[in-house]
Amino acid sequence: MTKEEVRGATEEEQQAQSKKALKKQQKEAEKAAKKAEKQAKLAAEQQSTEEDDFAKDRYGVLAMVQSQQKLDRTLVRVQDLTPEKADQLIWLRARVHTSRAKGKQCFLVLRQQQFNVQALVAVGDRASKQMVKFAANITKESIVDVEALVRKVEQKIESCSQQDVELHIERIFVISQAEPRLPLQLEDAVRADGEGEEEGRATVNQDTRLDNRVIDLRTTTSQAIFRLQSGVCQLFRDTLTKKGFVEIQTPKIISAASEGGANVFTVSYFKTSAYLAQSPQLYKQMCICADFDKVFCVGPVFRAEDSNTHRHLTEFVGLDIEMAFNYHYHEVIDSITDTMVQIFKGLRDNFQTEIQTVNKQFPSEPFKFLEPTLRLEFTEAVAMLREAGVEMGDEDDLSTPNEKLLGRLVKEKYDTDFYVLDKYPLAVRPFYTMPDPSNPKYSNSYDMFMRGEEILSGAQRIHDAQLLTERALHHQIDLEKIKAYIDSFRYGAPPHGGGGIGLERVCMLYLGLHNVRQTSMFPRDPKRLTP
Amino acid sequence: MTKEEVRGATEEEQQAQSKKALKKQQKEAEKAAKKAEKQAKLAAEQQSTEEDDFAKDRYGVLAMVQSQQKLDRTLVRVQDLTPEKADQLIWLRARVHTSRAKGKQCFLVLRQQQFNVQALVAVGDRASKQMVKFAANITKESIVDVEALVRKVEQKIESCSQQDVELHIERIFVISQAEPRLPLQLEDAVRADGEGEEEGRATVNQDTRLDNRVIDLRTTTSQAIFRLQSGVCQLFRDTLTKKGFVEIQTPKIISAASEGGANVFTVSYFKTSAYLAQSPQLYKQMCICADFDKVFCVGPVFRAEDSNTHRHLTEFVGLDIEMAFNYHYHEVIDSITDTMVQIFKGLRDNFQTEIQTVNKQFPSEPFKFLEPTLRLEFTEAVAMLREAGVEMGDEDDLSTPNEKLLGRLVKEKYDTDFYVLDKYPLAVRPFYTMPDPSNPKYSNSYDMFMRGEEILSGAQRIHDAQLLTERALHHQIDLEKIKAYIDSFRYGAPPHGGGGIGLERVCMLYLGLHNVRQTSMFPRDPKRLTP
Repeated sequence: MTKEEVRGATEEEQQAQSKKALKKQQKEAEKAAKKAEKQAKLAAEQQSTEEDDFAKDRYGVLAMVQSQQKLDRTLVRVQDLTPEKADQLIWLRARVHTSRAKGKQCFLVLRQQQFNVQALVAVGDRASKQMVKFAANITKESIVDVEALVRKVEQKIESCSQQDVELHIERIFVISQAEPRLPLQLEDAVRADGEGEEEGRATVNQDTRLDNRVIDLRTTTSQAIFRLQSGVCQLFRDTLTKKGFVEIQTPKIISAASEGGANVFTVSYFKTSAYLAQSPQLYKQMCICADFDKVFCVGPVFRAEDSNTHRHLTEFVGLDIEMAFNYHYHEVIDSITDTMVQIFKGLRDNFQTEIQTVNKQFPSEPFKFLEPTLRLEFTEAVAMLREAGVEMGDEDDLSTPNEKLLGRLVKEKYDTDFYVLDKYPLAVRPFYTMPDPSNPKYSNSYDMFMRGEEILSGAQRIHDAQLLTERALHHQIDLEKIKAYIDSFRYGAPPHGGGGIGLERVCMLYLGLHNVRQTSMFPRDPKRLTP
Repeated sequence: MTKEEVRGATEEEQQAQSKKALKKQQKEAEKAAKKAEKQAKLAAEQQSTEEDDFAKDRYGVLAMVQSQQKLDRTLVRVQDLTPEKADQLIWLRARVHTSRAKGKQCFLVLRQQQFNVQALVAVGDRASKQMVKFAANITKESIVDVEALVRKVEQKIESCSQQDVELHIERIFVISQAEPRLPLQLEDAVRADGEGEEEGRATVNQDTRLDNRVIDLRTTTSQAIFRLQSGVCQLFRDTLTKKGFVEIQTPKIISAASEGGANVFTVSYFKTSAYLAQSPQLYKQMCICADFDKVFCVGPVFRAEDSNTHRHLTEFVGLDIEMAFNYHYHEVIDSITDTMVQIFKGLRDNFQTEIQTVNKQFPSEPFKFLEPTLRLEFTEAVAMLREAGVEMGDEDDLSTPNEKLLGRLVKEKYDTDFYVLDKYPLAVRPFYTMPDPSNPKYSNSYDMFMRGEEILSGAQRIHDAQLLTERALHHQIDLEKIKAYIDSFRYGAPPHGGGGIGLERVCMLYLGLHNVRQTSMFPRDPKRLTP
C-alpha cells in the first residue's frame, strides 16, 4: 500500500463530515486557540512578575486534574466552617461566587452548593501584591483550592451562610476556570419576583434558565428543590417498603399503546415499531396477578400530549403503587393517603431548610394536611361547585379551573391542602376501572389533590377477564392489542387497586411553585428537548 | 337531525373496526358465553343439591369483589401459620396450589407467594359430601377465602413451607376462578435441569415462561429473584444516600444520540424526531457541573443493539453513579467498590432464604468478594491471559471469552468473584474518557466484573471543554450535536468520575444464573416486545 493510499482513508473521513460541520469545528478551534492565547498571556504576565514576587508559589492556575498524584490532603466542607475551627489552617475547594479587590485586599465569597463563606487575600507576609491581583481576576464560578486560616469575626457576616468565621487565604490555586461571560448571573436567578425592581435589577426568564440549566441548577433555590425531590422519592419508597411493598421495574418500550392509543410516542424498533409506556399500569397489575401482592415503582412515563401548560410535561417521573386488597378498595386509598402523609411529615420535619430557601424566592403558605386524610365523594364536590355558581352535569369530569375552585372551597371548609375525591363518573375513567356496585353511572375510582391540582389518579381495577373484555369492547379498544393484559386475569386474580403520582407535581405543589418545569431537572415539553 | 343520522355515528364507528378485529371480538364473546354457560351449569348443579345439603352456605363461588361492603375480617398470612396458632379458627385468602380428593376428604395445598400450607376438607359436621366435591373441583391457581381450624400435626409436612400445622377447612369460597387449562405448571417451572428426567417430567422452556410471565413469576424461584432484585436497588440507594449522594431523575427522551450515534432508538416527537437515552451519562455529569457533588440514579437505559445473547437486553435498568473527586479517580473507584461490597453483604445477610430458594433450582457456588476489592491493571490482565495462551495486542479490548477466562484465572489466583480492571486502552473507550497522564495509550477508566462478566463500565471524565472538544473531534463526533454537553464544562467543572451498573446482570451473576432474561421481569430483546 502506498503512502497516498494510507492517507486517503483520512481524507475520506474528512469528506464525510459536511462543510457546515467543518465550519463549526473551525470556529470551535479558533475559540480554543483564543483561549489558549489568553492563558498564555496570563502565564506570561505571571512569569514577568515572578522574579520579584516572593509569593509566586502560593497561587496560580494548576494543570488540569488528571489524577497525576494521590494527594494526602483533607478538604474541609464550607458548611463545617464554624467557630470551633478558629485559628486552624485548612484546605478547601469551592467556587468563587464573587471576588472584589479593595486596595491591598481582595474579598471573595467562596461557595459550595447552598453554603458560602467570606474569604480574604491581603498583602502581607503570606501574600504579595501580585497574588492579590491574581485573586481579584479569577472569573466568577471558577473552582479554586485555597489554604486558609479560619478566623472568628466580631460582627456576623449576614450575607453568607457561615456568619461567624472568615478565611484568611494563604494559598490559592485555580482548579477549573470559568469563562468570563456567564449566560446568567446566579444572584439574578434567585431574586424574588418584583424584588429590586426599582434598582433596575434583573430576574431571569424561564427559557434562559432552562437553556443554561447547569448554571441555573447551582442556585440555592434549585439546590433546595432537587434535594427535596430526592427526599420525596426516598420517603415514598421507605414508607412503602415498611408497609411490605416490593419495588418492581417495568418496561418502557411496549408493543401496543394500551390505554386507548392516543397521546403515545412511537419508537422505531428494529424492523417494527413500538411505543413508549404512558404508565406502568398494565405491568404493575400483572405483578399483582403474579402474587407480588403490593408493588411500587419509580420511573419515567411518557405522554405525547401537545399541551403547553404550567403542569404538563411530555416525560415525567411516575411514583406508582398497586396492591391487592381484601374486601374494599378503600383499603388502597388508606395505604396511599398514609404514604402521602408520611411524605408530607418527612418533608416538614427533615427539609425545613430547603423549604425556607425556596420560600425566600417563591413565598407560599405552609402545606396543610389532615390525619386521616379528607375523603369527599364526587357528588359532594359537584354540589359544592354548584353552590358556588358552577353549572355542570352529574357525569361531567372536572375542568382544571373547577378543580382549582374546588381546592379553594375545600381549603376554606376543611383547612387542608390535600384531599381525596372518590367515586368518579364511570364515563370519564379508563376502561379497566371497576364500576360502582350500587350505581352503574359511577366507579370505584379516585383522584388526589394538592393545593387544588390533581397529583394522583387511581381506582379499583377490574380483575375479572370477562368484565374487562366487556368494558374494553365498550370503549372500542382492539382486544387483540391488549390480549396479554386481559389474559393475565384468566388464571386467578385478586381484587386490587392503585394509583400513579406525578413526582414533579408533588414537589411543585408542596412548595407552592407555579410551574412544573421548576421541579424537573431537564424538562421535556412539546417545544423543549434540550439540554 | 333524524333518527337515522343519530344512529349513523354508531355505524361509522363500527365500520372503523376492521373485519378481523370484529371476528376476534366475536370469538372472545363466544368464549365468554361458554364460560358463563359453564358457570351457570355449576351454579345449577349446586342448586340441585342444595336442598339436601346442610352445608350449602359454607362454600361456593362468590360474586366478584366489587367493594360491595367493608368486611371486618382479619385475614391471616400463610407464613404466620405456626403452632402458636393451634386450635384457632382463622380466615385466610390464598391460591389453590393443588387439590386432590381422597374418599370422603379433599386435600389442598394453599399458597401465598413462597409460602404454602396443607389444608383439608373432610365430610363431617362442618362439611358435607357436596362441599368436599366442590373443593376437589376448584381449579388450580384459583383464589379462595377459607375459614379453618389450625391444627398441629404429629409428623412434619415436608412438602410445605408450614411444616408443623395443617388447616381443617370449615368454609371455602372461591374469590377468583382460574381457567382449567394452565399454559404451564408451576411445579414444572421450578424443576431443576435434569431433575426427574427418568420419570419423564417436563421442564418449561424460556419462551413459554416469558410468554406466560404472569404465571412464571408466581414460582418460588421467580418470587425470590425479584425480591432480591428489589433488595439490590434498596441497598444501592441506601448505601449511597449514607455517603452523601443525591438521587436525580434524568430525561430518557433526548434530542441527539450523544454517544456516537450507533445503537440508538429513534422516537417520533411531534413534528421532529428524538432518541432514547443510551445512558444518563451526560445528565449526571451536568449535575456534577451544577454542584450536586455526588449523584446517583436508577432508571431504564435503551440500546438498539441487535445482540441475541444471554446477557444483552434492549432495555435494562441502569444503576448510575457520578461524583466529583479531589485529586485522583481512585476515590471514585473506592466509592463504587464499597457500594458493591455493601450490596453483596446486604444480600448475604438479609436474603439468604431467597438465595437458597434460587439455588434449589439453579445450583451455584456462594458469591465471593474481598475487602478491599481487588484492583488489577489492564496490562496485568493481558499478561495473565498471555500466560494462559491467549494472543492479543496491548491495545485490544477484551473479548467476552477472554473476560470469562480472566475471571477464572483471577478466581484461582485471588479467590474472588468480584474485581476491578483499571487503566483500559484509551482507544477502546468513549470520547469523554480522561487519558492517562503518564501514558497516552491508556486511560483513567475501569470495568468491574462479577463471575467473569462485566457489570460496570466507568472512568474519570474529561472536565475541560477544550480537551473534550479535541477528543470529540478525534472520534469524529458532530460537535453541534453535543453542544449543550460540552458547554456544561465552560463555567467551572470539578474533576469527576463514575460508572453505570446493569441491575439485571448484577442479579444474574450474584445468583449464578445463566440468562439475563431470568432477572428481568418483562425482558426486551430484538425479538421480544411482549408481554
